[in-house]
Amino acid sequence: ELVAHLRIRLAVKPLAGKRVVITAGPTREPLDPVRFVSNRSSGKMGYALAATAAELGAAVTLVSGPTALPDPVAVDTVRVETAEEMLDAVQERAADADLFVGCAAVSDHKPAERLDRKRKGKGGFALELTPNPDILAAVAALDNGPVTLGFAAETHDALAHGREKRAAKGADWLAVNDVTEADAGFEADTNRVTLLGPDGEETLPFGTKHEVARALLARIAPRLA
Amino acid sequence: ELVAHLRIRLAVKPLAGKRVVITAGPTREPLDPVRFVSNRSSGKMGYALAATAAELGAAVTLVSGPTALPDPVAVDTVRVETAEEMLDAVQERAADADLFVGCAAVSDHKPAERLDRKRKGKGGFALELTPNPDILAAVAALDNGPVTLGFAAETHDALAHGREKRAAKGADWLAVNDVTEADAGFEADTNRVTLLGPDGEETLPFGTKHEVARALLARIAPRLA
Repeated sequence: ELVAHLRIRLAVKPLAGKRVVITAGPTREPLDPVRFVSNRSSGKMGYALAATAAELGAAVTLVSGPTALPDPVAVDTVRVETAEEMLDAVQERAADADLFVGCAAVSDHKPAERLDRKRKGKGGFALELTPNPDILAAVAALDNGPVTLGFAAETHDALAHGREKRAAKGADWLAVNDVTEADAGFEADTNRVTLLGPDGEETLPFGTKHEVARALLARIAPRLA
Repeated sequence: ELVAHLRIRLAVKPLAGKRVVITAGPTREPLDPVRFVSNRSSGKMGYALAATAAELGAAVTLVSGPTALPDPVAVDTVRVETAEEMLDAVQERAADADLFVGCAAVSDHKPAERLDRKRKGKGGFALELTPNPDILAAVAALDNGPVTLGFAAETHDALAHGREKRAAKGADWLAVNDVTEADAGFEADTNRVTLLGPDGEETLPFGTKHEVARALLARIAPRLA
């Protein structure tokens, strides 16, 4: 933590005066008080982005789903559980931000019904799932909203899915990674991403999630108003 | 960790020479490489039981689902993900054990189909869930198997459900708790349990999960062959 504070003191500040809102981690979508649907996101990439943005001088809010990670130093961290809660927390803060980074692995679906008692019965059943709100698309659709950077975690045809996703969500930038690679997946400390943006596509150097965070923010910082 | 080692050196050893197998944590049941169904178990109660049993002299194997907890000192810890993997790990070890403690919150169900690529499509859908194996019942059914202690995490009518569960699974002992209580739930550091056993029912003193672990093992140790 001392090192983190020193880094903040000593770094050059290309994001000084900028407000950055970042989402991280998975969301959990409960079907009853005990059980939920979720995903393997560890939150490491989003937390690395939040810490790095703070080092670069930004005022950072991190809206995080459930993770085992400590709050990053000098970052306002808001803990949420579901996609709906994450959307609410983001909507309160995104309109005033300069940059929104949607790094959370938001569950695409949630159980249609949330029981207030533990579901009983051992037989099989069909769990009805309904679509969750699309947080990145909602922020990208704001009038005078922030610049947007999204992430696509893919298991096949990563670039093709990333291009579709950038267009469908209306994001300015989209970082694509193939989470089936052991050194670039949800639980890894390293990552390998291709950044799709207004100027084209660039595969960034392989590195730790902090190094990838610095590379991403170095490219986007000059493009903030 | 030094303290943990000292406790092991200094404790009286009512479980010396005994082999104890303990399950802990949730299980995760994948529907594709990224998404899964799971539950809120933190693993804290099972890890406290494993650490305590080792302090009391037992040779302890902890079969743990995904948790954020470090391996307990002086405990052989085996990490698994799904209920099927947990069952396999337990079956390799339970027949030779003196005591089996089923503290994991094993998912009652798993997705009927596990996709090897990330599921695509934003619309709603019905996720087919099928029953998982019952690990506690499988161990309780072993000929010349270990003494068994199970746990029931309930959200209503806890004692009634616990009595049914003890009978249905054939467990010797069953510890019941109401996980809707803030100081006795999955993520709490404290617990309040009622122990159902061959001699009747006893509500143990409220305490830390380590204190509750000591109280449980103090009652069961004299009953091991």
